[in-house]
Amino acid sequence: MGVVVPLGKKGQPGASLEPLMRLVSADMARVNALILKRTGSDVKLIPELAGHLISSGGKRIRPMLTIATAQMFGYHGEAHVALAASVEFMHTATLLHDDVVDESSMRRGKAAARVVWGNEASVLVGDFLLGQAFKMMVEVGSLAALAVLSDAAAVIAEGEVWQLAAAKNVSTTEDQYLSVIRAKTAALFSAATEIGAIIAGHGTDERAALRSFGNNLGIAFQLIDDALDYSGEEGKLGKALGDDFREGKITLPVVLSYRRGNETERVFWRRTLQEGTLEDGDLDKAVAIMRRHRAIEDTVERAGHYGAMARDALAIFPESAHKAALLESVDFCISRVS
Amino acid sequence: MGVVVPLGKKGQPGASLEPLMRLVSADMARVNALILKRTGSDVKLIPELAGHLISSGGKRIRPMLTIATAQMFGYHGEAHVALAASVEFMHTATLLHDDVVDESSMRRGKAAARVVWGNEASVLVGDFLLGQAFKMMVEVGSLAALAVLSDAAAVIAEGEVWQLAAAKNVSTTEDQYLSVIRAKTAALFSAATEIGAIIAGHGTDERAALRSFGNNLGIAFQLIDDALDYSGEEGKLGKALGDDFREGKITLPVVLSYRRGNETERVFWRRTLQEGTLEDGDLDKAVAIMRRHRAIEDTVERAGHYGAMARDALAIFPESAHKAALLESVDFCISRVS
Repeated sequence: MGVVVPLGKKGQPGASLEPLMRLVSADMARVNALILKRTGSDVKLIPELAGHLISSGGKRIRPMLTIATAQMFGYHGEAHVALAASVEFMHTATLLHDDVVDESSMRRGKAAARVVWGNEASVLVGDFLLGQAFKMMVEVGSLAALAVLSDAAAVIAEGEVWQLAAAKNVSTTEDQYLSVIRAKTAALFSAATEIGAIIAGHGTDERAALRSFGNNLGIAFQLIDDALDYSGEEGKLGKALGDDFREGKITLPVVLSYRRGNETERVFWRRTLQEGTLEDGDLDKAVAIMRRHRAIEDTVERAGHYGAMARDALAIFPESAHKAALLESVDFCISRVS
Repeated sequence: MGVVVPLGKKGQPGASLEPLMRLVSADMARVNALILKRTGSDVKLIPELAGHLISSGGKRIRPMLTIATAQMFGYHGEAHVALAASVEFMHTATLLHDDVVDESSMRRGKAAARVVWGNEASVLVGDFLLGQAFKMMVEVGSLAALAVLSDAAAVIAEGEVWQLAAAKNVSTTEDQYLSVIRAKTAALFSAATEIGAIIAGHGTDERAALRSFGNNLGIAFQLIDDALDYSGEEGKLGKALGDDFREGKITLPVVLSYRRGNETERVFWRRTLQEGTLEDGDLDKAVAIMRRHRAIEDTVERAGHYGAMARDALAIFPESAHKAALLESVDFCISRVS
């Protein structure tokens, strides 16, 4: 395994999250403290389960985006910290519920919470985190930010149900798949970036620019995630290679391979992903078919397209350390496949 | 089965929800239309699953309370309709997640949604309804109402996790049990009534009075529900008699019976509820033990106590048709056991 996919012209090798992380590190320390505080409860199961997932080294890219965009406008208040923590709680709640729905066994390189504490606890602690997220947003008191975040919550949930209903359909079109990830991933990225502009008191154009930036970065991020599941290095991935395959998830590499494939290959995809009948060696076979059709490479290419749109969305803003760091984070996201 | 429990002195036989329903019927028609509209989605599974539960004849007591309290203050706007629908969505989301956690097979006399559409769909459609609830609240734009409702959401979820962690402990004290139902049931009742005062623009005293009214009515309502599970008439109940028993739920009739019982009886409760080892005739045996200790009757008595507190909470308000109907709804709630 561990296929090295050559970078498309849009990925910048050597790009790093470091500049972004440096700029937000002081505020992120406050976000992390707030996350810890707001998962506190006399009900021990809550900090235990939430801590297992939250402390297990997710990159916290979403709250970083909220902090960075607010800072880019020179915002110096407190609200961005609470909103960033809310965004991470919404994300964590989604992960907990997703793992229950997908019956996943691993998450971020550790046993999924549902394996350790059960599905019931994962559902309910997810609800608790969602409740805390809304409480924190309400405490901030910005109705505009609340509108963006509650809208994202509804869109995310609708997308999840859509995916469940449409799951296991290998003849999903690329457009249908894009609708799913716009809802499941991009909606929270775009909310995370737009609220940075809102809380800093900026207007329609800035909000629209950051919404577009987050939306396209989110799509790129998800597509790269899809590619990594078939080509990443296990240690870096934080999940087992081929998890999506074993769970029958229809992702872009599959969508492209199915459409470009012959009937024998389509029978293979239907057996493995729709019917879920897996045999030894099927994952290797899947990767081989994908490589034959350049499906992983083209997934990375597609990600590059959305990355380019994300970069252009920032063009209206004057040059600054923050803008440069946000641009580099796009490149980092896309160059993760290597 | 179908034990007829004599009414305690606090229940008024013949009390009815009719007066309340008559006062709120026009606004409730708008609430119902809004509920229908906001469960609409191109993702067919959402209106199907939500409609199954929402249209299956719950009494909609919570949204009725929001409408009635707002009307009591002469409120004539639109906001109470949206807030009432939000409250019902929060309740429905909780039911969907509860049934998954408790592995319930029946809800309101029909197959539980999780039996028809699966646990996954129930989790995700619950999330969708919660998202819609928050969207509607945000659209109303009252930060005070948002604070009350988001606080309730967090308290409810924390209570659910607590109950999961403490479940199956037959030596739960009455106080511990009360903490659970304050969170699981009373928090939403008290939010539903308090937002009536908030949206009508009323102050601290009125808010506190309605919060207290809803809180105590919610506790009474839940205790009567607990009693009905062991003494109700199957047809009226909307769930199978003894569901709580079969699911190993520790409710007040159990708490009282366990504490008042001898060692043989305690062994019985541990086997049936903690270990979940059920034999034919165990439900009859459970009811017989409860009757020996007057546990069902005293659960109804306790409900009467909270009902009395609910009634007194309304004392500061001038007499009106709405106040009278709210008072009678307390009596109705308690006289359900007959």
